[in-house]
Amino acid sequence: MSKIITTPMSGFMELLPAEQLAFNKMFDTIRHTYELFGFVPLDTPVLERAEVLLAKVGGETEKQIYQFKKGDTDLAMRFDLTVPLARYVAEHYGHLTFPFRRYAMGKVYRGERPQAGRFREFYQCDIDIIGDGELDIRYDAEIPSVIYMIFCTFGFERFTIRINNRKILNGLFASLGAADKSTPILQSLDRLEKIGAAAVEQELGSLGLSVQVIERIMAFTRISQSKGDVIEALRNLGITDAQFVKGVDELGAVLRLVKEFGVPAHNVAADLTIARGLDYYTGTVYETRLDDYPDIGSVCSGGRFDDLASHYIDRKLPGVGISIGLTRLFDQLTKRGVIKTGASTPTRVLVLAMMDDMAPSLALATELRKHGIATEVSFGAGKMKKRLGYADKLGIPYAVFIGEDEVAKGVFTLKNLQTGMQEELKRDELISRLS
Amino acid sequence: MSKIITTPMSGFMELLPAEQLAFNKMFDTIRHTYELFGFVPLDTPVLERAEVLLAKVGGETEKQIYQFKKGDTDLAMRFDLTVPLARYVAEHYGHLTFPFRRYAMGKVYRGERPQAGRFREFYQCDIDIIGDGELDIRYDAEIPSVIYMIFCTFGFERFTIRINNRKILNGLFASLGAADKSTPILQSLDRLEKIGAAAVEQELGSLGLSVQVIERIMAFTRISQSKGDVIEALRNLGITDAQFVKGVDELGAVLRLVKEFGVPAHNVAADLTIARGLDYYTGTVYETRLDDYPDIGSVCSGGRFDDLASHYIDRKLPGVGISIGLTRLFDQLTKRGVIKTGASTPTRVLVLAMMDDMAPSLALATELRKHGIATEVSFGAGKMKKRLGYADKLGIPYAVFIGEDEVAKGVFTLKNLQTGMQEELKRDELISRLS
Repeated sequence: MSKIITTPMSGFMELLPAEQLAFNKMFDTIRHTYELFGFVPLDTPVLERAEVLLAKVGGETEKQIYQFKKGDTDLAMRFDLTVPLARYVAEHYGHLTFPFRRYAMGKVYRGERPQAGRFREFYQCDIDIIGDGELDIRYDAEIPSVIYMIFCTFGFERFTIRINNRKILNGLFASLGAADKSTPILQSLDRLEKIGAAAVEQELGSLGLSVQVIERIMAFTRISQSKGDVIEALRNLGITDAQFVKGVDELGAVLRLVKEFGVPAHNVAADLTIARGLDYYTGTVYETRLDDYPDIGSVCSGGRFDDLASHYIDRKLPGVGISIGLTRLFDQLTKRGVIKTGASTPTRVLVLAMMDDMAPSLALATELRKHGIATEVSFGAGKMKKRLGYADKLGIPYAVFIGEDEVAKGVFTLKNLQTGMQEELKRDELISRLS
Repeated sequence: MSKIITTPMSGFMELLPAEQLAFNKMFDTIRHTYELFGFVPLDTPVLERAEVLLAKVGGETEKQIYQFKKGDTDLAMRFDLTVPLARYVAEHYGHLTFPFRRYAMGKVYRGERPQAGRFREFYQCDIDIIGDGELDIRYDAEIPSVIYMIFCTFGFERFTIRINNRKILNGLFASLGAADKSTPILQSLDRLEKIGAAAVEQELGSLGLSVQVIERIMAFTRISQSKGDVIEALRNLGITDAQFVKGVDELGAVLRLVKEFGVPAHNVAADLTIARGLDYYTGTVYETRLDDYPDIGSVCSGGRFDDLASHYIDRKLPGVGISIGLTRLFDQLTKRGVIKTGASTPTRVLVLAMMDDMAPSLALATELRKHGIATEVSFGAGKMKKRLGYADKLGIPYAVFIGEDEVAKGVFTLKNLQTGMQEELKRDELISRLS
């Protein structure tokens, strides 16, 4: 019989056990941190009515969406967790308490053309704080403290949360009489690090901007690269556009408060060039880079928006949030050898009976599990060496032997499978050793 | 502007925050227990090539599958976690250690016609132990001990894990010369509890079975309802069919071993009528009923199979496993008021500054989080009563007040929001009180 291809489709991550355990550890760190900050979990359907998911999108994104008909219903698979959040808040508005702090961690789908490092199915791990009518700027400063705790727990020290404010960019372009060209200007600035200042200047020139305007834009971009006080430098530009001034005030407040939230100065930077997409965000925007792996790009991004759900409800619902693309992050860190995988099992102890009667082994396993120690009982046949081979292959750190000698003496033989050290312990000693 | 319908589609569960937290608690109990028994997590794609998922199914199940084309590829959404496991084991066979113990907890999809209590998107929580060539019968006895621990942790005492062995049924029918009618006989027996013995006898008669054969089948079904030793009663039937004898031996071994695995006798019963589907299982089969809610039906089912992945690999891979349909279980328990929801947030403490300087409040929140205490800082405006209303609505149990008095005295005012009791505590006292 010819066999069916079992390789997962391109763009769908599938991990071996040791990798999956490492992935889950990162997943749990994010989840635990989100809960420590009081975000409540939310789990919305992966499948939605197509009209719900497509209310706001168009162009390239719409082409990527997995969309199909079942019976008479047009269905689509979610491509992010923000649109479902908007629908949820609109649907359950009367049952929610605002500011509504929710986290969501689940798979989203984009049928992109296969490309190295791009996924069609991937985890997003989002938090958002949604206000009813208004939302204090201090929430914008809280978000980086969540990012900070997560990446510290991952084990990183050298990472930078870059912060900007869209009002500054919009106000700048308005003050330069170039508001109508803000989209291509931002696209050009977004590539500043990649293509360099000279190439950006050339691109700006091709948009028909004057030499003076280009010079002012480039001077603006140089502010965040200088070591001085960014807020003071922005004020010194002398721009009086109301939006610009408001943006500078907000950015100043966020940068000041972030320190009070316990984020060290070297993990935060103002970066006046980041814009995070073009339409959605209206105030603070964030990107996070790992200093030692700049080519990974941003590993945690987000920002402030004025209006979450106007397609679904007649309420002004401003919010601020971030997203970690965990599948891509895990993939990139694995490729660079940053993630070290360990055991291929959660099991800490393998119990091996050296007698026919399994009862003492099974009773011990039950007791160890009650103490939170993941335990397996070996039912394998054959020689002890072969049975220990199973523990060795999986990376189980301890074995406990129970034979007639042990039962007679009321002890257990504990073997550390890494060091080979072996000792006889009473039940309580064994449990406290393994706890 | 006319607004889009935001109600989730029928058959797609969506929960409010307090319900979601209760759901996640059950999810975490299952996950934690699976890991305590040494099962490794596995996360396979929700979308697969249609030919992979459809290799074995047909009829009604195939009609339920969400299937569609993207570009040139026929895709389908998984409808269970067993077919993806089979594909995974075939694909990664060389990298796995056997017996391979894996758990999987994720959403599966069945586009059924909407029906009360039926879901189109639902969580399955599966464990399976897969052997390479062979798998000891003792693994069949281990499975009920996992079920037992989970339902105890859920808080149930009165539940029964019913166990049968397919070989007994197949051997019985063979010995009665009715092997060719085993499918309709099993379908009839499956409804014994629902329709009663008389109706089943009538159905068996309409299959053309003789009065003697029907009487032997009915005598067989009465064995597990009697209080005596089921295994002895089965042996006393005098059936010499080799499969029957093997099945009785296996069931006897499993029932005996289950006790050694620590499952109390009153949580286990032999039930000779359960068959769990018709083709897949080949030995031990399990169902689990909540004694006080018999109409929910089985809440955890599974069994032994000879051959996991023959469609994908030329290896004999026997296994044993179970599945908990968590979405349906949660729904049924909620409707019966068994699940009590609590707070609408994971937050344990709301910190309220009674002064302009937020720094002491933010510093305390950071410290509480480092001690694993979920903490929010109130940025709300308005009177203290209004700000505490937020904690009240969400069910946050504690508030900490920090004003100039507290800072001067080096203390924090902790208020238990359930009792109203208030006390001044030093930092360390506060942390140990809340830990």
